[in-house]
Amino acid sequence: MGPHPAVAAIRLAVRRVLNDILDEHRPSGAEPDENRTAERLPSPLVLVACSGGADSMALASALAFEAPRLGVRAGGITVDHGLQPGSGLRADEVVLRLRELGLEPAEAVAVTVGREGGPEAAARDARYAALDAAAERHGAAAVLLGHTRDDQAETVLLGLARGSGIRSLSGMAAVSGAGGRYRRPFLRIDRQTARKACMVQSLPVWDDPHNADPAYTRSRLRHEGLPALEKALGKGVVEALARTAQLSRDDADALDTWAGQAEASVRDDTGLLECAKLNALPPAVRRRILRRAAIEAGAPAGSLFARHIEEVDRLITGWRGQGAINLPGRVVAQRQGGRLVIRQG
Amino acid sequence: MGPHPAVAAIRLAVRRVLNDILDEHRPSGAEPDENRTAERLPSPLVLVACSGGADSMALASALAFEAPRLGVRAGGITVDHGLQPGSGLRADEVVLRLRELGLEPAEAVAVTVGREGGPEAAARDARYAALDAAAERHGAAAVLLGHTRDDQAETVLLGLARGSGIRSLSGMAAVSGAGGRYRRPFLRIDRQTARKACMVQSLPVWDDPHNADPAYTRSRLRHEGLPALEKALGKGVVEALARTAQLSRDDADALDTWAGQAEASVRDDTGLLECAKLNALPPAVRRRILRRAAIEAGAPAGSLFARHIEEVDRLITGWRGQGAINLPGRVVAQRQGGRLVIRQG
Repeated sequence: MGPHPAVAAIRLAVRRVLNDILDEHRPSGAEPDENRTAERLPSPLVLVACSGGADSMALASALAFEAPRLGVRAGGITVDHGLQPGSGLRADEVVLRLRELGLEPAEAVAVTVGREGGPEAAARDARYAALDAAAERHGAAAVLLGHTRDDQAETVLLGLARGSGIRSLSGMAAVSGAGGRYRRPFLRIDRQTARKACMVQSLPVWDDPHNADPAYTRSRLRHEGLPALEKALGKGVVEALARTAQLSRDDADALDTWAGQAEASVRDDTGLLECAKLNALPPAVRRRILRRAAIEAGAPAGSLFARHIEEVDRLITGWRGQGAINLPGRVVAQRQGGRLVIRQG
Repeated sequence: MGPHPAVAAIRLAVRRVLNDILDEHRPSGAEPDENRTAERLPSPLVLVACSGGADSMALASALAFEAPRLGVRAGGITVDHGLQPGSGLRADEVVLRLRELGLEPAEAVAVTVGREGGPEAAARDARYAALDAAAERHGAAAVLLGHTRDDQAETVLLGLARGSGIRSLSGMAAVSGAGGRYRRPFLRIDRQTARKACMVQSLPVWDDPHNADPAYTRSRLRHEGLPALEKALGKGVVEALARTAQLSRDDADALDTWAGQAEASVRDDTGLLECAKLNALPPAVRRRILRRAAIEAGAPAGSLFARHIEEVDRLITGWRGQGAINLPGRVVAQRQGGRLVIRQG
């Protein structure tokens, strides 16, 4: 008898990602069959980021099972955010559980969470900085993250609430970070499957009280917003949101590529943007070029909203002698003799 | 003292659309200033589609106010769907109100609602067919529809639930239908403003009981889904969804253009799709070409889902000798000697 379907599902998801990592770490030009001759290469180390919650414990268990079968070394890191009394003890307990699974190294890293960007963003920034440092320290080839399809759906809705276009609908990438360090094997696995896999493997899991704290946007979305949306639209909403993420990401990538290529063709000899040529581009491409130009001139990407770009766009598509437009980061956009000049004022 | 801000807002929205319509109906080449000489041209007729609800009554009132000032003739049509006892009487009452506003022609059109695609889609199909016929009969230049920003937000969420990509996130167009017949002046006006405008103008409005019937997906979304989402994500959700619609529409248009241009370049002399050339395109462009090819071969667009196209795409990006893939409409996709053959089986 094989493993429980939930366990089989999480292991398959991890196996695919480990195979991707092995493919990438194979010496270039070597075919899979020739790999036997490369046995003296050190086997890559893959770390799992584990909070002790069901998603990342399931991920840790699947990594511990699959890694030795594929000749991969597997370790685990838990980040102690220091936001609750006793968080250090809990981190130590997670480390014990990772060791019990056979993960080595298994360690806790304490971080100090700042305030920038709100509590969730600050905790995330601190966590990724610690994971980056741990990956460097151990020479890890990759760090696995336990985000599920449900997390992805929530991320899409959070992006939707910004109303800033399809890039913000594209959720979390399966591969991200410098050199593709972070991998999310569970983006197509639902939270329920991860929980089930922990249960049938008798893995104790820790429920982060933050996840149910209505002070957090994501928590409100999880416990109220998404269930209400499912009630109105049907049970397929989470899957639809996750699929939207993937499609939006591909679309946004393609349009960024197009804008990158078109940008050179709309600049004159002195590097200024020519309004007539910009006007001939599809609006979606033109606005991306304008956004890139504003960021290049010093506007902070996070403060540059769709309405800013729309206003700059009207210098091209609705020209009636408007004055200069002020953008975040003291960047100014103005039309001068058929050229668009965007620079820090 | 000017009109109430809500009344000013709806009138401005209608004025802009009427000006667009006048611009389009001006003899080509004529400048606005020369228009005086073209007074013998019959003034265009613009119809408003009016259910008697607050949104379309507000729209009718704004049209009745603005049209004579711009030299536009204004009429109104109400569609009797025959779905409730007394719907004919109500339609007659709406006609009276339209007449009171000074709209002429003002008429009720009775339709028979079929069953295809569910109750909401069937009613919509019957309604647009009747409006098309009325516009033809009266030689109308345009038909105004009262969809608000809130309707737009709901439409985006309904599209999101399909999970079929950014085209389904793009909501309703400001201009649509054959020759741009349908115009939606209120896509940036919220429902509350339309209600307020009716109230301060003492216009009686009729609340369609369907709008509150939880048997309808849109009604559940309006009364439960969206409010829960606003509670979780904040009050700006409706605006963010409406902005997402516009951005997604522009992005989808640009990618469709790209796919249309790229399609010719990936076909061989006999018109077959070359896998190697398809493989070199960005996934977002390639999948659009595959979708177009499947539809051209006879697959019904409405039954062709993202997962179908993904499977066909794997014949190109993940070729391992797969067999033929069955698509809706008895269309079959298969790889043959480096070519992709998509045709009805």
